[in-house]
Amino acid sequence: MLINVAETVVADGLRGLAAAHPELTVDVESRVVVRRDAPLEGRVGLVSGGGSGHEPLHAGFVGPGMLSAACPGEVFTSPVPDQMVRAAAAVDSGAGVLFIVKNYTGDVLNFDMAAELAEDEGIQVAKVLVNDDVAVTDSLYTAGRRGTGATLFVEKLAGAAAEEGRPLEQVQAIARQVNENTRSFGVALSAVTTPAKGSPTFDLPAGELELGIGIHGEPGRERRAMMTSGEIADFAVDAVLEDLQPSNPVLVLVNGMGGTPLLELYGFNAEVQRVLSQRRVAVARTLVGNYVTSLDMAGASVTLCQVDEELLRLWDAPVSTPGLRWGM
Amino acid sequence: MLINVAETVVADGLRGLAAAHPELTVDVESRVVVRRDAPLEGRVGLVSGGGSGHEPLHAGFVGPGMLSAACPGEVFTSPVPDQMVRAAAAVDSGAGVLFIVKNYTGDVLNFDMAAELAEDEGIQVAKVLVNDDVAVTDSLYTAGRRGTGATLFVEKLAGAAAEEGRPLEQVQAIARQVNENTRSFGVALSAVTTPAKGSPTFDLPAGELELGIGIHGEPGRERRAMMTSGEIADFAVDAVLEDLQPSNPVLVLVNGMGGTPLLELYGFNAEVQRVLSQRRVAVARTLVGNYVTSLDMAGASVTLCQVDEELLRLWDAPVSTPGLRWGM
Repeated sequence: MLINVAETVVADGLRGLAAAHPELTVDVESRVVVRRDAPLEGRVGLVSGGGSGHEPLHAGFVGPGMLSAACPGEVFTSPVPDQMVRAAAAVDSGAGVLFIVKNYTGDVLNFDMAAELAEDEGIQVAKVLVNDDVAVTDSLYTAGRRGTGATLFVEKLAGAAAEEGRPLEQVQAIARQVNENTRSFGVALSAVTTPAKGSPTFDLPAGELELGIGIHGEPGRERRAMMTSGEIADFAVDAVLEDLQPSNPVLVLVNGMGGTPLLELYGFNAEVQRVLSQRRVAVARTLVGNYVTSLDMAGASVTLCQVDEELLRLWDAPVSTPGLRWGM
Repeated sequence: MLINVAETVVADGLRGLAAAHPELTVDVESRVVVRRDAPLEGRVGLVSGGGSGHEPLHAGFVGPGMLSAACPGEVFTSPVPDQMVRAAAAVDSGAGVLFIVKNYTGDVLNFDMAAELAEDEGIQVAKVLVNDDVAVTDSLYTAGRRGTGATLFVEKLAGAAAEEGRPLEQVQAIARQVNENTRSFGVALSAVTTPAKGSPTFDLPAGELELGIGIHGEPGRERRAMMTSGEIADFAVDAVLEDLQPSNPVLVLVNGMGGTPLLELYGFNAEVQRVLSQRRVAVARTLVGNYVTSLDMAGASVTLCQVDEELLRLWDAPVSTPGLRWGM
C-alpha cells in the first residue's frame, strides 16, 4: 500500500485533498470537508459521510450542485456525531440541513444522534436513508438493505434541487424519491485490503467471484467460478430488474470497486447496455467509472435510477466537485 | 478480470465508451474515436493514440478543448497507421493535424508512416514526441526516454491552443514547449496483469516496490523493500527535480497506475506537496487521480510541468472529455 502508517491514512488523504482542491475547506483535525462558499443564503445544506475507503464518495462529491459538506470516518468505520454537527453548523444558512445516510448500523445511529444534537443547536435537520443494494438483507453491518451506488444519485439530484433554492421538505422528498427509484447489485473479483489489516479481509480464490458483494467486502449471495463480463451483466442487471421494473428511462451507473481497470469497466458497460436493451429498458444517461469504491477491490456494480423529466433535468444540472463535474 | 475474452477487450471497451458518450463518434471496427463536431472549420486537429490499457488516456481525452481524435491499439501495442490516417482525415478542416506521439518504438514508426500517408492525401501533418520519464533511457520498447504523464499536459495545453484557432505551427510549438518543460517518475507496488496473459507480466514480490517503473511494467531503476508514502514522494520528486529545475510554478499530476485507491493517492499527494514545498517549488495547480494507467497495476507517478502565465491560462481553459472536464 502507498501509505505512511495505517493510523494516518485518513488524515493524510484529507491533507492531500486540501492541497489539490483549494475550493474546499478541509478541516483535517475535525475531519469535515465543506464547500468554501458555504453557508449559502436561503439554500438547504446537504451533509453526508461514512467510512473512508469509498473515494471519491463522499468528500469528492462536495461542491456546487452536490454536497455542501462531508464527514469521513476511519476506513470502513462510521464518522462520529461531532463531525456531523460541525458540518451541519458550517453549512446551515437557516434553511435547514439534509443528512444523507447510507444504511449501515453505525452510520444510522451516529447520524440520528447528530440530528438531535444539531436540532438542540437550533438547526433544522431532515434525513434520508439510502438502501439500494438488492443483493441481500440484514448483512454484516446492516439491518435491511445496504446503501451503495444510489448514494451518488441521491447526492447529485438532491444537490441540484438544493442549489435551485428548494425548501428542505422538497429536497428531502426528492432524495427519498431517488432512493426509492434506485437499485444496485455488485460483484467482487478480488478481496479488499484495508490499511489496518494489510492483507485481504476475506478469502476469494483466483478464478472465483462473489455475486452480490457489499462495498466493505461483506458477503453477497453466492460464489461461483469466474464468469464472463456478459454473464455478470446478465446476472447483475436481472437482479436489479427483479426489484425495480422501470416504466421510465433510467440513469445507469457502471461503477468500479477500485481495482478494476477502466478499459474493463467500459467493456462491462457494453454488456450492461446489451442486457438493458434486451429487457426493453430505456437508458437516459450512463456514467462509467470508479465512484463508490472499496479501496483496491476488483469488481463492479450496476446501479439503475429511474427518472422522470424533472429528475433528468436535475441530473443534467451543472455540478462542480472533485469527483463529478460538468456544466461549470 | 472483468472481460469476455482477451481478443475482444478493446472492441468491448469501445462499444461501452460509445454507449456512455454519445458526444463521441466511435468507430469500433476501425478503432478510431472522434469528437462528434469534427472537423472544426479553421481549427487544427489533434490526434493521439497508443496501446490500450492506459485509460482514460487517450480515448477518454477526446472532446472540446483537448484531443480531436484518438486511435487505440491492442493492449500495450501500438495502433496501426491506417487508424491514424483515418483519424487525421476525420478531423482535418484544412488547417492541418498535430500527431501527439508517446516515445515507444512502435508508436513512433507507425505515426511516422501515417504522417507520410496523410500528407499523400493532402493533409498537413506536424508531430510532437512525448518523452518525459526521467527514470531510465533506452528501456524495453523505447529508445531514449519513455512518454508517460506529460502526455496529459501536452494534450490539454495544445488542445486548448487548437480550440482557440491557433495555426498548426503554433500548436506544435506549444506542444513541444510543454513536453520540454515536463518530467515524470513512477513507482509500482504490484505487477500488471494483461488480458492476453491472464497473470502478472512480471514478478514483484509483496513487500517490495519498483522505483522508476514504466507504464507497461517495464523495469525501472531499482527494487527496494517497501517504502512509506513520504519516502516514495521524496525519491520521485527528487528524481524529477534532478532533471527539471523549475523557475516558474508547476502543474502537478499525482497519477495512479490503476490499482491504487484514490484515498492513498490523495495521501501520496500530501507528501508530494510537502517535498515540493521543502524544495521551494511553487505549485500552480494539482490534479490527483487515475489518468495515465497501466491496467490494474498498483503504484503512482509524479509529473511536474513548468508553466508560464500563458500555459497556465491554457490549463485553466474549458475542457469537456470523458476523463477531464471543467468549465463547460
